[in-house]
Amino acid sequence: MKNDNERKESLGEIIEQINNLLEKHKIVEGLVEKQDVPKQKLIKNLVNKQNTNTLKRLLAGLHPADIADILESLPIEQRLIVWDLVKTENDGDILVEVSDVVRQTLIADMDSTELLAAAEQLDTDELADIASDLPEDVLQELLDSLDVQNRERLESALSYPEDTVGALMDYDVITIRENVSLEVVLSYLRKLEKLPSSTDKLFVVDRDASILGVLPLKVIVVNSPKIKVQDVMSSDTVLFSPDDSAEEASDAFERYDLVTAPVVDANKKLIGRLSVDAVVDFIKEDAENEKFSMAGLKEEEDLFSSIWKSVGNRWAWLAINLVTALIASRVIGIFEGSIEKVVALAALMPIVAGIGGNSGNQTTTMIVRGLALGQVSFSNVQRLIYKELGVALLNGILWGGVLGVFAYILYDNIYLGYVMTGAMILNLLLSALMGVMIPLILTKLGRDPAVGSSILITAMTDSGGFFIFLGLATLVLL
Amino acid sequence: MKNDNERKESLGEIIEQINNLLEKHKIVEGLVEKQDVPKQKLIKNLVNKQNTNTLKRLLAGLHPADIADILESLPIEQRLIVWDLVKTENDGDILVEVSDVVRQTLIADMDSTELLAAAEQLDTDELADIASDLPEDVLQELLDSLDVQNRERLESALSYPEDTVGALMDYDVITIRENVSLEVVLSYLRKLEKLPSSTDKLFVVDRDASILGVLPLKVIVVNSPKIKVQDVMSSDTVLFSPDDSAEEASDAFERYDLVTAPVVDANKKLIGRLSVDAVVDFIKEDAENEKFSMAGLKEEEDLFSSIWKSVGNRWAWLAINLVTALIASRVIGIFEGSIEKVVALAALMPIVAGIGGNSGNQTTTMIVRGLALGQVSFSNVQRLIYKELGVALLNGILWGGVLGVFAYILYDNIYLGYVMTGAMILNLLLSALMGVMIPLILTKLGRDPAVGSSILITAMTDSGGFFIFLGLATLVLL
Repeated sequence: MKNDNERKESLGEIIEQINNLLEKHKIVEGLVEKQDVPKQKLIKNLVNKQNTNTLKRLLAGLHPADIADILESLPIEQRLIVWDLVKTENDGDILVEVSDVVRQTLIADMDSTELLAAAEQLDTDELADIASDLPEDVLQELLDSLDVQNRERLESALSYPEDTVGALMDYDVITIRENVSLEVVLSYLRKLEKLPSSTDKLFVVDRDASILGVLPLKVIVVNSPKIKVQDVMSSDTVLFSPDDSAEEASDAFERYDLVTAPVVDANKKLIGRLSVDAVVDFIKEDAENEKFSMAGLKEEEDLFSSIWKSVGNRWAWLAINLVTALIASRVIGIFEGSIEKVVALAALMPIVAGIGGNSGNQTTTMIVRGLALGQVSFSNVQRLIYKELGVALLNGILWGGVLGVFAYILYDNIYLGYVMTGAMILNLLLSALMGVMIPLILTKLGRDPAVGSSILITAMTDSGGFFIFLGLATLVLL
Repeated sequence: MKNDNERKESLGEIIEQINNLLEKHKIVEGLVEKQDVPKQKLIKNLVNKQNTNTLKRLLAGLHPADIADILESLPIEQRLIVWDLVKTENDGDILVEVSDVVRQTLIADMDSTELLAAAEQLDTDELADIASDLPEDVLQELLDSLDVQNRERLESALSYPEDTVGALMDYDVITIRENVSLEVVLSYLRKLEKLPSSTDKLFVVDRDASILGVLPLKVIVVNSPKIKVQDVMSSDTVLFSPDDSAEEASDAFERYDLVTAPVVDANKKLIGRLSVDAVVDFIKEDAENEKFSMAGLKEEEDLFSSIWKSVGNRWAWLAINLVTALIASRVIGIFEGSIEKVVALAALMPIVAGIGGNSGNQTTTMIVRGLALGQVSFSNVQRLIYKELGVALLNGILWGGVLGVFAYILYDNIYLGYVMTGAMILNLLLSALMGVMIPLILTKLGRDPAVGSSILITAMTDSGGFFIFLGLATLVLL
């Protein structure tokens, strides 16, 4: 048994050693990049036997998830060298564990035979996870090789949108009937010899496979074998439909401390199960994806992807940003006459815009969180707006006052101080109002408020801040 | 059994109904706010019997986590009315489920007797979660009321820092010896009658309570009762130490699909267990906290907290923002002479700064993610910098080119166009360099790169962008 810390350290050491080993082969990369020789062949020729053996020894016995981690942290050429060495009986599992972008680089390195062999090691739900990255012909061949039940399952798994329960569920259900004794259940289980991973309960169904209840293993082991299933099963359990959103399902798992839960169709017929493994993966990935989209990255990016790919992944956000910046620029353009007369305005205006943007983002973060938890509704929105306006007014007086004094001292013009304070108060009020309204409107329009809000708020408080400050200055100073 | 969708809907309806019911009592709030009469008494007098009964009926039978949700989505006065109605045999569980800030408002509404009664319903690890919010005297009384073992556990749970395994673990472990048969294990379990929540395995220990292995329930049910524990237990399992970081533990749970895992001291003596419930709670809370701190909120804020409290929660970030904005403002101040001569510079400069900031944040998001996954190390940082500089150069030529043409057309000055393009390229290169360096330096200094990076990047690209653009303009145009 290994302590988690020791495990981490040994993993770190392995990566370090792999890096060192591969460092010696820098010449390989150079050659690979320059020549048009098939990569694998070349690498096999150049990586000498001794190092290969050391590498193999390091990688042997590692959990597929750990190997996936190592592959993700290596630049593409070194990644393929290692991938070539580990491609064995569990390459299917590794393909499931790596991120989408890294999987594509690995699959590109495999031929049809290897891909089919890898796919054969996987369950239907795992196949569904990697299917979209497989070449068309391999996928077709794979579908043809499956039996009717598994082909139907795979096709239905592929038909559910990514963020639904249907896309996360698996088919590892063990069903029993309600009118048998625990003794019968136990002897049935013993015949199975091994239960699917994360099995914490059995599903009790009737003749038509409709769900009647669940029987946790921990109930089986504390009751007498004589007892009937129907007397100890729990019929008060949360059911999911494959169309339920994965986000809401993950909330339910958190709330009710679930390990597995039945997934049923409209007639309560059992079609699969949702397990906490899949939910944990989803929660982690979802949090990551949100961070990526908040920064305007279209999708998770391979750290070592090519420059062109990266530019493609990031351009949309920068383009939107360009448009909002141009609008703000034109707002300033209106007041060029005023700036020419009082050039201090140019130095002061970004402060008003910047602090407004930050304050607005604070409000939006609160509201987006409240929306996600169902705490914000149209019945309490008025109250929230009042509160945020109150906070903005206080902050405006406080920070606007500080900045007013600063502007007065720096430029020896009391009116410039007044303008600064006034503009700060007004822009913070605007940012509070927008900070509440924008996520609500995005939600109303059916969009994810976590993603678009930030850029919209900043656009409003930039253009708004410039307009308020320069407009006020034009009125008061000129 | 209830479908997850139905459950959600019925919860939404209940909140709606509660809101409507409480709406009728608006007069109560008014009175409560204006008078100094003890709140509870007043509310009890004014809320009429009929509505109280409807409310009670609505709340009866709800899961504590659902009641916690309802309480969080109500403004403070209405929250306390509902809290008064549900305070019953499971108020302890509700206190554990609500967020820290909301818990404080609830505890402030309870007297010592009520608090002690609530605390008595809780396990030691749950007590540890709410202990920091309890008044000093109640906590002391509570400690005195516990037996030696539980007092020691509570004190040790309180001694672990928030984001460690020690703070998340519980003591619901069932231990067995290795040399007994599964039959003996089963008859022991039957005597217990009920197993702790999330129990998926038993812990096998020796005479000194040192861990030898684990025995999953799903292994018990598929094996013959005659088999000895030592023949079927798994001795290859991940162990945690109470000092391990919760973040790393959650990675291990995700990676190895764990449901529960043993927590041991330095001598491998079993002291508790970590369960996936606690891990899921941690992951969700951690993701939320990161979002809050990225927006500069000191802690999770009660949506309905007072304006003063909110200002206190948000001021530090705005103050830092003020300082960086003032620095940027002084950078512009240096070039006031240039702006006076070419006022177009004032309108164009925020574009350079803004796009630089966004691009830098994209880079940082990638690097922070890579750091968290252990994919970024000092051995590959050079490669990452080259890649990001390449992306920046391409983006600079692309967007800088567009902006150069825009500036040329708008102001009919080809040199202004050159300056715009040049400044964009240089500021994007700066943002790429800083985007890689800042999170690495913060990590090196032992700080969380996810939190501080964004404000530092923006500060650099603002001041840097103004300096580069105005400096270049001064050189080229004047």
